[in-house]
Amino acid sequence: MGGNSLGRVFTVSSFGESHGKCVGAIIDSPPSGLRIDRQHISLYLKRRMMGYGSTGRKEPEDFEILSGVFRDHTTGAPLLLLIWNRDVDSSFYESIKSKPRPGHADYVARIRYGGWNDYRGGGRFSGRITAGFVAAGSVALQLLKKIGIRIYAYSKSIGPVSTEATPREEFLKSVYENPLRTIPSDSYDSMCNIIERAKQSGDSVGGVVECWIFGLPVGIGDPVFHSLDSDIAYANMCIPGIKGVEFGLGFQCTRMLGSEFNDSPIIKDNKVIYETSKSGGILGGISTGAPIYFRLAVRPTPSIYLPQRTVDLEKMAEAELKLEGRFDTCIVPRVVPVVECVTAIVLVDHLMYQGFIPQVLKEV
Amino acid sequence: MGGNSLGRVFTVSSFGESHGKCVGAIIDSPPSGLRIDRQHISLYLKRRMMGYGSTGRKEPEDFEILSGVFRDHTTGAPLLLLIWNRDVDSSFYESIKSKPRPGHADYVARIRYGGWNDYRGGGRFSGRITAGFVAAGSVALQLLKKIGIRIYAYSKSIGPVSTEATPREEFLKSVYENPLRTIPSDSYDSMCNIIERAKQSGDSVGGVVECWIFGLPVGIGDPVFHSLDSDIAYANMCIPGIKGVEFGLGFQCTRMLGSEFNDSPIIKDNKVIYETSKSGGILGGISTGAPIYFRLAVRPTPSIYLPQRTVDLEKMAEAELKLEGRFDTCIVPRVVPVVECVTAIVLVDHLMYQGFIPQVLKEV
Amino acid sequence: MGGNSLGRVFTVSSFGESHGKCVGAIIDSPPSGLRIDRQHISLYLKRRMMGYGSTGRKEPEDFEILSGVFRDHTTGAPLLLLIWNRDVDSSFYESIKSKPRPGHADYVARIRYGGWNDYRGGGRFSGRITAGFVAAGSVALQLLKKIGIRIYAYSKSIGPVSTEATPREEFLKSVYENPLRTIPSDSYDSMCNIIERAKQSGDSVGGVVECWIFGLPVGIGDPVFHSLDSDIAYANMCIPGIKGVEFGLGFQCTRMLGSEFNDSPIIKDNKVIYETSKSGGILGGISTGAPIYFRLAVRPTPSIYLPQRTVDLEKMAEAELKLEGRFDTCIVPRVVPVVECVTAIVLVDHLMYQGFIPQVLKEV
Amino acid sequence: MGGNSLGRVFTVSSFGESHGKCVGAIIDSPPSGLRIDRQHISLYLKRRMMGYGSTGRKEPEDFEILSGVFRDHTTGAPLLLLIWNRDVDSSFYESIKSKPRPGHADYVARIRYGGWNDYRGGGRFSGRITAGFVAAGSVALQLLKKIGIRIYAYSKSIGPVSTEATPREEFLKSVYENPLRTIPSDSYDSMCNIIERAKQSGDSVGGVVECWIFGLPVGIGDPVFHSLDSDIAYANMCIPGIKGVEFGLGFQCTRMLGSEFNDSPIIKDNKVIYETSKSGGILGGISTGAPIYFRLAVRPTPSIYLPQRTVDLEKMAEAELKLEGRFDTCIVPRVVPVVECVTAIVLVDHLMYQGFIPQVLKEV
Repeated sequence: MGGNSLGRVFTVSSFGESHGKCVGAIIDSPPSGLRIDRQHISLYLKRRMMGYGSTGRKEPEDFEILSGVFRDHTTGAPLLLLIWNRDVDSSFYESIKSKPRPGHADYVARIRYGGWNDYRGGGRFSGRITAGFVAAGSVALQLLKKIGIRIYAYSKSIGPVSTEATPREEFLKSVYENPLRTIPSDSYDSMCNIIERAKQSGDSVGGVVECWIFGLPVGIGDPVFHSLDSDIAYANMCIPGIKGVEFGLGFQCTRMLGSEFNDSPIIKDNKVIYETSKSGGILGGISTGAPIYFRLAVRPTPSIYLPQRTVDLEKMAEAELKLEGRFDTCIVPRVVPVVECVTAIVLVDHLMYQGFIPQVLKEV
Repeated sequence: MGGNSLGRVFTVSSFGESHGKCVGAIIDSPPSGLRIDRQHISLYLKRRMMGYGSTGRKEPEDFEILSGVFRDHTTGAPLLLLIWNRDVDSSFYESIKSKPRPGHADYVARIRYGGWNDYRGGGRFSGRITAGFVAAGSVALQLLKKIGIRIYAYSKSIGPVSTEATPREEFLKSVYENPLRTIPSDSYDSMCNIIERAKQSGDSVGGVVECWIFGLPVGIGDPVFHSLDSDIAYANMCIPGIKGVEFGLGFQCTRMLGSEFNDSPIIKDNKVIYETSKSGGILGGISTGAPIYFRLAVRPTPSIYLPQRTVDLEKMAEAELKLEGRFDTCIVPRVVPVVECVTAIVLVDHLMYQGFIPQVLKEV
Repeated sequence: MGGNSLGRVFTVSSFGESHGKCVGAIIDSPPSGLRIDRQHISLYLKRRMMGYGSTGRKEPEDFEILSGVFRDHTTGAPLLLLIWNRDVDSSFYESIKSKPRPGHADYVARIRYGGWNDYRGGGRFSGRITAGFVAAGSVALQLLKKIGIRIYAYSKSIGPVSTEATPREEFLKSVYENPLRTIPSDSYDSMCNIIERAKQSGDSVGGVVECWIFGLPVGIGDPVFHSLDSDIAYANMCIPGIKGVEFGLGFQCTRMLGSEFNDSPIIKDNKVIYETSKSGGILGGISTGAPIYFRLAVRPTPSIYLPQRTVDLEKMAEAELKLEGRFDTCIVPRVVPVVECVTAIVLVDHLMYQGFIPQVLKEV
Repeated sequence: MGGNSLGRVFTVSSFGESHGKCVGAIIDSPPSGLRIDRQHISLYLKRRMMGYGSTGRKEPEDFEILSGVFRDHTTGAPLLLLIWNRDVDSSFYESIKSKPRPGHADYVARIRYGGWNDYRGGGRFSGRITAGFVAAGSVALQLLKKIGIRIYAYSKSIGPVSTEATPREEFLKSVYENPLRTIPSDSYDSMCNIIERAKQSGDSVGGVVECWIFGLPVGIGDPVFHSLDSDIAYANMCIPGIKGVEFGLGFQCTRMLGSEFNDSPIIKDNKVIYETSKSGGILGGISTGAPIYFRLAVRPTPSIYLPQRTVDLEKMAEAELKLEGRFDTCIVPRVVPVVECVTAIVLVDHLMYQGFIPQVLKEV
């Protein structure tokens, strides 16, 4: 398998470049018989575009479903989702072609591909690539909704300011109602301020996204490889800008005793359940039926307005670089829907693999 | 591909159970012409067995190479590495069959496999599975050594005590000289004390393992999926007990400004290099040529001697469970060689994929 | 991996339906630095459309490269090749929706996908799907040309009439100069007559395509699975309408003695070569350096003008069906370029896998 | 995925060499809850060893199940099947090391692996490799039996003599009762005579194996790639010595008219069925519910007692080679069970992929 696909049976292949004609994804293949809600795809593409701290382009994405849907339902054939890029001015990228942007993949991509890569706007390494993940993930979310599985991400922290509010489902449901995509808390204003201050100084900030999964049945995942946490970690680490992932109490558990950290099953309503979810709702790579949650470290946007040191590859000399364009001061709120989508893809892949989602949803 | 394989061209498939006949791995396939150093495999299997805080079995593992090696060199055919299990008494596991151990996969495995899984000693979910990773990883390490790539892991923290010493290669080289598998620092005694105290109270502790890679050329990895950090994160998350992973400054970067965190290229000896490695030596999923480093959260051992709450699945009632046997108070030092091995597998896979390691090492 | 991809490192994923918006393929991923000759793609798409016995649409295909090419060269990112379908009238297919066409997949597809499949023009099962193979295969052929590997297919027989002329490379080079896509022989007129007669009676005919590969080095392929002949057979069997494949003397070898059939190496110009190629230029799944050749059985076109027996799925009664539209009397000449393209994809995949084609063709 | 695995979800990985320690296979992974019948595995291993025209070793194979089975049932973990090789004298192979055997892969393997391959007894290229296929295939056959799917192969022809008897299931059931593994017919004695005559002259003969599948439901397979016929063709072409495959009427259909060859559905007992199976029970890559059948061309055994021409690679001169050892005059009867097993693996893989075989067969 080439380097641009994810999943075993619900396989999502990514394509496209930032300043090329399009970005997108192929799903090979969704079950047949799913009614495709195009509004949902549009909504998620829009959510990916916006958020507090982003440059806030307003026009909706121009997406098309080019194969795999007939009479508004999936056919079971490969589903091609394509988002057209708008005409963009790439001239600035020509001017800095020989000056790799700090924190970006410009230089390593040049080496990796012998200089043939499309460097405009970061090309294949751009965050724009995630529009394809989101389109495919919207389809996955639509599938999960039918079987009662809910995924919610939110901005847990912006720079050094974190919300410690409890992420109850009722709050998580409404994170898109605020531009920070966070849950109600006293920290809201401070989080905004962090972004404002960075913006004013031409700098950028990062943060933490936390994601919760409700309704996943017990018993999903494989031991060893394709353990559910490994697959979720993998897919989310593929989102540009993610530098770390932790499940449940995560790194905090390394400072706890076994007796404090172990999740124990209990009996409730004559059923075995895990009430605690300190390990994140996954034991041995397999879901326990408790809510699954994990956190992702989102780096500060590498593109900033401050002058930076770099090298001039033509002159083989050190150089200063001052970037021009519209950059997000903070991508954390924009990462929120991408995390939901990528996680949905992983869940659908596992659920199809184990037969929890059949290949034919229903007969016509 | 089934759920028990890792890698695209240097594919490692895991098999075996804790109290079954054996554990092991197949590599499909190493390049032909590698002289196999059996001592190295033995050494790594031994390293995996021991370490401060472990129960310290002394007998060497009984491993065999069953295919793929002829006249002491790899043939290019699948390399089957098998480690025989010793006769072990599984009777205790029979006695607690209906009482899932807290923090273990006993209950979820039962649901996942309809009750058919081998539950003795945790079966497929046991840490013993990593003996197969280590055997395969030793082969990967031998390959990497030939091209000058070095991987070193060490115990960065035990419970709340962390070493802040600089992990210079000269120190990393000698971590196996101390049973904590850590680098020299003032924290050594405190780290040991944490383990001792937990041991005395019948409890367990976790910690953090940090891993460094030196000598990897610039340009290894793919954007989007199969990015180098995603693949390293994935493989290490597959080690039982790992709850988080972070590259470079990791979660700390979320509290930094872009201007502080960006790695800039510089010119040194007329070559472009990255001197800083704040993002962990990987940008856009591709190696920068700077040292790569990442940290893993290792949970406290789930098996402890203290009585714990669980359920009795036969009586469908809550129950107390007191485990018997020999348990590691802390697995952090034992995880150290496993991390090196798993990481080596990922690197060889990428290096073969990109042609940096040829399919035939040399002609006879 | 989903069901619509071919290859391990040069992975071609197919998408599209006959009467949908488009058909096409993604290559994940070609080496970077290949100059893409769009004329070559157009030429092969045109060759796939025409040929003696076909309905002979004249307008060129409307294809686009949507990603993976920048400044006319491959970037090393996924290459998306898309061929727009023309507006076609699907009303006839609505009228026969409940009457599965004999020899077609109409009924089995309905069952397979629960009735959700796009049945118009055969949908995903249409020969039109091969336009995507051809576009991807053209890229593969362009790669092979750079390293001196040539692939030629030709119409070996039409119905019962076969050419026994020797397929020398000089003749094979010019098969596209005649509409039968065959080599010069006395059988030419008889082969045409077979098609003419079938056409006049509203019927169809099949035939045999033979394919030759020159210039492939010795040592390409793997034993057991991914043997070169298995992979070539597999990919060609995926072309709609192929019912059999044989290498070298094929089924004829079953009537020979071992002493007659064995290929022996000889010394020529102080080099070891195989002069004979009775086994088709492949031994043990690995190329011998001799020309590789194989034959494919192409079934008579299932769509014919004669009335046929079928069932009416709504009335659950037997029914007569008379097809309307433009059908190829014989698809053999149209299969010729598809075989070349599909075979080229397999060869490039093996050559990249073994490192004979590097991931970066040259530096900029 | 490396070059030694077959299948998407019921993945069979092959390992071992002819004169190494063992051969075998890993299945990753069978559904849990299948009672493993070791007698069935032994029976099929024995069937693979014997047959008219073979050298007829009598001792049963020494096989072990090393993982994935607990209390006689599959656990859902990787199932490792290993067949120990007996001590064999490899000295003859040392003596002919520089003289590639005609019709064998000796020379091409040497080039492929840079001379590191295990050449003893053909190493990885030996027919002995199929013992691993058979062990894994026996497990697949046991799975298929539970859902009423039957696979039968038989010797259709030996050299130029073919049986034209109708392969009714009642006859197919008993092919192992005769050493030719064929169905009752007048040709029996002639077929035996062909083998006898070749044996007396120190030569070898080939033949045709035909395989029938009964009971497969309609709707199994994918269009385009992973079409059922392509996957069956692929897996069977991987058996050493197979030079061609054809489904249904196969190459004969190329001489027929569309009106003669098309399979039409009919109504029987108020159900839609395909009574004819001219295309071999598969349309568009998907099963029609009619019996599936195909034929394989088995080459004459390459190892013969007659002196043959070859080259001496050390002297770089042409040379004569006279092989010593025990060779099968005809491998056709021994291929029969291998075809059944390999085909069973493909069917189980498709049935699991489409959910017709669940991942858990039943609860304990």
